[in-house]
Amino acid sequence: MSEEKVRIFDTTLRDGEQSPGVTVTPEQKVHIAQKLDELGVDAIEAGFPIVSAGEMYAVKTIANSGLKAEVCGLARAVDADIDAAIKCDLKYVHTFIATSDIHMQYKLKMTREQVLERAVHAVEYAKKHGLKVEFSAEDATRSDRAFLIKVFSAVAQAGADRVDIPDTVGYSTPQYITELVKEVKEATRLPISMHCHDDFGLAVANSIAGINAGAACAHVTINGLGERAGNASLEEFVMALQCLYNKKHNIKTQLLYETSKFVSNTMGIIVQPNKAIIGENAFGHESGIHTHGVINNPLTYEPISPELVGRKRWLQAGKHAGAHGIRAMLEEFGINPNEEQLHMIVEKQKNIADKGKAITTSELLTIAGEVMHNSQFEERFKLYDFHIVTGMNIIPTAVIRLNAEGKDLIASDTGVGPVDAALKAIQKIAADVASIKIREYRLDSISGGSDALAEVSVKVEDKNGNVVSARKANEDIVVASVEAMMDAINKVLLKKVLYSKS
Amino acid sequence: MSEEKVRIFDTTLRDGEQSPGVTVTPEQKVHIAQKLDELGVDAIEAGFPIVSAGEMYAVKTIANSGLKAEVCGLARAVDADIDAAIKCDLKYVHTFIATSDIHMQYKLKMTREQVLERAVHAVEYAKKHGLKVEFSAEDATRSDRAFLIKVFSAVAQAGADRVDIPDTVGYSTPQYITELVKEVKEATRLPISMHCHDDFGLAVANSIAGINAGAACAHVTINGLGERAGNASLEEFVMALQCLYNKKHNIKTQLLYETSKFVSNTMGIIVQPNKAIIGENAFGHESGIHTHGVINNPLTYEPISPELVGRKRWLQAGKHAGAHGIRAMLEEFGINPNEEQLHMIVEKQKNIADKGKAITTSELLTIAGEVMHNSQFEERFKLYDFHIVTGMNIIPTAVIRLNAEGKDLIASDTGVGPVDAALKAIQKIAADVASIKIREYRLDSISGGSDALAEVSVKVEDKNGNVVSARKANEDIVVASVEAMMDAINKVLLKKVLYSKS
Repeated sequence: MSEEKVRIFDTTLRDGEQSPGVTVTPEQKVHIAQKLDELGVDAIEAGFPIVSAGEMYAVKTIANSGLKAEVCGLARAVDADIDAAIKCDLKYVHTFIATSDIHMQYKLKMTREQVLERAVHAVEYAKKHGLKVEFSAEDATRSDRAFLIKVFSAVAQAGADRVDIPDTVGYSTPQYITELVKEVKEATRLPISMHCHDDFGLAVANSIAGINAGAACAHVTINGLGERAGNASLEEFVMALQCLYNKKHNIKTQLLYETSKFVSNTMGIIVQPNKAIIGENAFGHESGIHTHGVINNPLTYEPISPELVGRKRWLQAGKHAGAHGIRAMLEEFGINPNEEQLHMIVEKQKNIADKGKAITTSELLTIAGEVMHNSQFEERFKLYDFHIVTGMNIIPTAVIRLNAEGKDLIASDTGVGPVDAALKAIQKIAADVASIKIREYRLDSISGGSDALAEVSVKVEDKNGNVVSARKANEDIVVASVEAMMDAINKVLLKKVLYSKS
Repeated sequence: MSEEKVRIFDTTLRDGEQSPGVTVTPEQKVHIAQKLDELGVDAIEAGFPIVSAGEMYAVKTIANSGLKAEVCGLARAVDADIDAAIKCDLKYVHTFIATSDIHMQYKLKMTREQVLERAVHAVEYAKKHGLKVEFSAEDATRSDRAFLIKVFSAVAQAGADRVDIPDTVGYSTPQYITELVKEVKEATRLPISMHCHDDFGLAVANSIAGINAGAACAHVTINGLGERAGNASLEEFVMALQCLYNKKHNIKTQLLYETSKFVSNTMGIIVQPNKAIIGENAFGHESGIHTHGVINNPLTYEPISPELVGRKRWLQAGKHAGAHGIRAMLEEFGINPNEEQLHMIVEKQKNIADKGKAITTSELLTIAGEVMHNSQFEERFKLYDFHIVTGMNIIPTAVIRLNAEGKDLIASDTGVGPVDAALKAIQKIAADVASIKIREYRLDSISGGSDALAEVSVKVEDKNGNVVSARKANEDIVVASVEAMMDAINKVLLKKVLYSKS
C-alpha cells in the first residue's frame, strides 16, 4: 500500500470556480488547467459542462489540449448532463446524486428507491457511452449508512470505475471517515476518492484519514478554494502526506507556490498571510526567539525548507525582534554594527514598534545610519512633491518631484488609475539612475470605513537582478503606494552601493 | 469527562501578535483583551512582558482591568522574564524552554541536563513568587520522547499547575498527539494544554485529538493568527468541538464573527474568503444546485446555521446560478417574473458570467427591468462625472456630478484620501434624497502589477435600517469605489420603492 502513489484529483476548476465571487473566462480556465498539468496532478475536473455555453467551450478545449492529466467533467445523474460531458469530448465523467435524507427530501424531492435507480441508470448510461465513471454519493457523510452502502454497491455492480465519498458540508470527523472508507471499500472493491469540505477546518485531516483507511485518491483544490469555506487544500494535503505520512505522489512540490499565486490572481480570491505552505507568512519570522533560531538553523522554526515548495524565507524587524534578528538583517546589507551600536539600534526600533508601527528595512537602515554616523545608509531618493488627477472621462495622470542625490527631478505619466500613473512616473525618474522595474505590487485588503489604513507592498528589481520589497501604510492609497515605491527604490540602490563597496 | 468544559486559552495577544506584519499599540492590545473576555475565553495570554516597555504596559493594564478570564504572560525559563511578569501584576505565568535536540543544540546551546535544571528552576522560582504556573516544553512534538517525559515529570514535581504540549512547527499528526497526551497525562497527573501550529493545515485536528486523548485545554487564536501559518483557530476549534464532538465550552459563539472582524481590523491581517466559520464565503452560495438546496432548506448545504456564529447567509448570481437562485434573489426585491421572463433573465445573466464578469444585484435588477419592461427597477442615481485631485501637501478633494431622478446634482468634499473624498461627496448628494450612511468599505487585496484589478465592496444603510452591499471591479481604485457606492445607493433606493409599493 505505502508504495502506491496517492492520486491527486484537482477540482479547482469546478469546486474552486463555484466559490462565490470567483468569475473566470473560458480562456482563463484553460490556462489554469495547463498550470495544474505542469504541477503534476493526476486528474483535473475541468468543469460542469451543462451550466453554460462558455463552460462547455472551456471543458472541451481542456479535454482536447493534450494534457498528461486525465480530464474529467461533472454531471448530475441525469442523461442531459452526461450528454453535455460527451459533447465536450470527455472520456471521463464524475456523476453524482445526493443520498442523505435531507437532500433527497428537500432538494431532490425523491424517495430512496428513486435515487438508487437514478444512480444506477446514470452509471449504466455513461458506461454505455464508453466513459470512465467516478460516482459520488453527495452528502455521503450525512447519509443513512446502510442506504449509502446500498447505493455504492449498486453503482459498483453497474460498472462504476471509482467511487467518491463527499463530505459535502464538512461535517465529518477523521474517526467517522476512517470507518466509512473501510466499509465502502469492502462493499465496492473499487478505488475510493475522498472529497472533503473545510467548514470546521478539518478538510485536510479528513482527507488524510481517508487515505490512511484505504482510499486511493483525494479531490483537492489549489488554495483550498471551493464553496463556502472551500475544499481540502492541495498544497496542505500533499505536503502533509509527504512530510508527515511518508506517502508518495506525483506533484512537483517546487511549483506549489507559483501555482497558488497564479490561481489566486486569476480567480481573484486572496490567500490569507497565515495560510499553511502558501501564505505570505508561512516562511516569515518576526519574533526575536524565532529569528535567532532560524539564523542558527532554519529547522528550529521551520517544519520544511521553503525551497521545497518554491519559496524563500524572510525575516522582519518587529517588537519581538531581538538583537540576533536585527544583526542578520543589517548584515544582509553588509552593515556590521558593534555590540553597543546594535543595542542602540534595537532600542530605537522597539520604540517605534511599541507605537504600533511596522518598521521597514529602509527605516532600519536609516536608524543604523544615524546610530553609526554613516550617511551612506541614508535614502538617496527623496520625495518632494506629487500631484495626481483622476476621475471619470479623465486619463489618470501623476506629476512627481524627487530629489535624487542632490538633483531636482520632475516627471509625469499617465496610467490605468492614479497608483499606476504615480508609479510609472517614479520609474521614469529612477530609470536614469538605476533602471528599476516593478516586479510586484500588492495592496492588502482594507476593511472598515473608506478612511481605513491601506497597506501597500512593492517589490522592485534592478538590472542586476537584485530584488527588494518595501511596505507602507497610509489612509491615502496613492500616498501609501508612492511611499512604498520610494522605499523600495532606496533599498535597491543602497544594496548596490553597499555591495559594490565591499 | 464529557461533562467538563474544554478550557479555551486564547493566545491572540501573544502568538497572534508575533505574526510577521502584525503591529498593535498597547491600547489596541487592551481593547482586544476586552473583546476576548466578552467572547468568553477562559484564559488570555496577554503578551510577553520582557520584550519591550510598551508590552509591559499593555500586559499590566490587561492584568488590572478586572477581566473574568484569567490573565497570563509568557516568560522564558529565565528569572528576568518571570520578574517582568511579576512586575506586570500577573498571577499566572506561562514559562517555557525547548526540549528538542535541534533547539537545544542550535538555539539554546545547552545540554539536556542544563535544560532540565533550568525548567525545574523556573517553575520553582515562579511558584516561590506565588504564581500559578503553566509549563511548556517548546518543540515537544519533535523532542526525544523519554527526555520530554522526564522534563514534564520533573516540572510537575517542582509544582507546575499545568503543562502544555506545543507542536511548535506544526509537524505532528493526530495519531502522535493522541499517544503523547496519554503518556504526559500519566506521567504528570496535571491538566494538559495543547498548543498546535498550522504548518500543514492540521492545527485544529491536532488540538481536537489532544482533547479526545484527555487534554483539558487548547491554546488557540482568533482567525488562527500566529507565527508562520499561525495557530489553531479558536472559531474552528470551538465549533468543531461543539458540533462534531458534542463537547461543552464557555465561548459565546454568537460573538465569533464580530470578534474575528475586530481582531482582523485591529491587527491588520486579513481573513481569506474561504476560511471556515469566519471567512466572507463561509455562508455564501453561488452555484445553482447549492442555492436551490439552501432556499428549500438551508441545512442541505450548511453544516450549521450562520446565526449560531453571529452571521447571515447570502446568495450570489454567477455562472452556476440556476433559475431557483435568481428567482429567490429577485423575490427579495418583490419582483416576480413569470417562467418565460425568468428563463430570459437567467440566460442573459449566464452570458455575462461566461465573460468572467461577476454580476451585481443592481445589474440583475436592470436585466429584470429590461426583460419585464419595467423601468421601476432601473437605477435612480446616474453618475455623470467625477474629478479627483490628491498628492503630497494637497488635501484630497473630489467633485461629483450625478443625475438623481432627472435632476443634475453636484457636490464636492475632501477626505483622508481620494476614495474617502469621493464617497463623502456622493453621500452629501444622497443625503438630500435618502440619508444614506456607509456601514462598511472593503477593498480586496490586489496583487500583480499596479495595473491589476481592484475589487471594492461597499455596504450602505438607509435611515430605515435597510442594508445593502455592492461590489465593483476596476483598474482604478477610485473608479471602482465610486461605482460600488453608486450601485449600493441605487439598490437601497430600489428596495425602498419596491417595498413601499407592496
